[in-house]
Amino acid sequence: MMKLYHTELSGNCHKVRLMLSLLELKHDRVLVNLASGEHKSADFLKIDPLGQVPLLIDENTTIRDSQAILVYLARKCDRTDWLPLEAESMAKVMQWLSFAANEINSSLFIARLHFLFGMNFDWETAQQKGKQILQIMDEHLRERNWLECSSPTIADIACYPYVGLAPDGKVSLEPYPNVMAWIDRIKQLSGYERMPGLE
Amino acid sequence: MMKLYHTELSGNCHKVRLMLSLLELKHDRVLVNLASGEHKSADFLKIDPLGQVPLLIDENTTIRDSQAILVYLARKCDRTDWLPLEAESMAKVMQWLSFAANEINSSLFIARLHFLFGMNFDWETAQQKGKQILQIMDEHLRERNWLECSSPTIADIACYPYVGLAPDGKVSLEPYPNVMAWIDRIKQLSGYERMPGLE
Repeated sequence: MMKLYHTELSGNCHKVRLMLSLLELKHDRVLVNLASGEHKSADFLKIDPLGQVPLLIDENTTIRDSQAILVYLARKCDRTDWLPLEAESMAKVMQWLSFAANEINSSLFIARLHFLFGMNFDWETAQQKGKQILQIMDEHLRERNWLECSSPTIADIACYPYVGLAPDGKVSLEPYPNVMAWIDRIKQLSGYERMPGLE
Repeated sequence: MMKLYHTELSGNCHKVRLMLSLLELKHDRVLVNLASGEHKSADFLKIDPLGQVPLLIDENTTIRDSQAILVYLARKCDRTDWLPLEAESMAKVMQWLSFAANEINSSLFIARLHFLFGMNFDWETAQQKGKQILQIMDEHLRERNWLECSSPTIADIACYPYVGLAPDGKVSLEPYPNVMAWIDRIKQLSGYERMPGLE
């Protein structure tokens, strides 16, 4: 059985929980205690030298990085609806995986760390950048239901948690009606799993 | 014919130039003047709302983000050696694309921006993080020729430029012999294209 190492309040972990739930994949979950530094312990670093959650173990396969795990699950189940293989569609999905790993991670993610967990970051810059990327997403979603393609893909799942959790970083979603409608669409997917703060 | 919008000194642009060259794909190149803000002009933002290079246009398809362009080129040419489709292999490659977009981007990339272009960044933190990720890569490459699989993949191309250019950010590669051997291996690939500072 697949085993997911995760924490409750991590949006990156939630991407994976959500995907597992949407694909109805049975798995075990192991909570990792970040506060006590469990992810930086020698045992954990042996499995993942970056010392990060989420981490997925599927028999002899270990995959780190939330975006890579989404790719793994979609390919394992051969779900080309969630990850198309045609060049343009796959590259367009990939754009949003990078957007999640870079743009969202350096803005909404950072603002949330500051306000929710009291970490010392430049929250003003993070919020400002967060609003810019929400504006870009809002424009992009003006005539689309999903970030790419005609049905949800892992692009939507990769971007969803930290966008939905933007209010944790004191960034309101009210000015972005298309983003809010997209969030509601994701919440209505069959198999949707809630996370604390994003219900 | 494909058209690449790029700048000479960007490692992200070099990933794409290198891949185009390795795949022997004919294309036009358009230099974008970042110093004059051409990438933030209304015309450019119409094509790419993020205002970034590299940007690839292939007939009616526009792909932004260097990692996404690598995926596009590998899939367009159906080169499953460069981007395998099997779940584990593809996810392992994807790990390194995220590693390039996040870990390398927030360390070696930042240190280089500081020292080469005089941008005001926390270069000490960036260098320290850069050394950590070089150490992780060096361990990983101890018994491997390539980051994943038995032949080069887009994982190698995505990570290569800013690792090879680490000395621009005053991070020496000398302590990482496996990384240095890997860099040499890439330089010896048929169709390798040099970039300034990485010759």
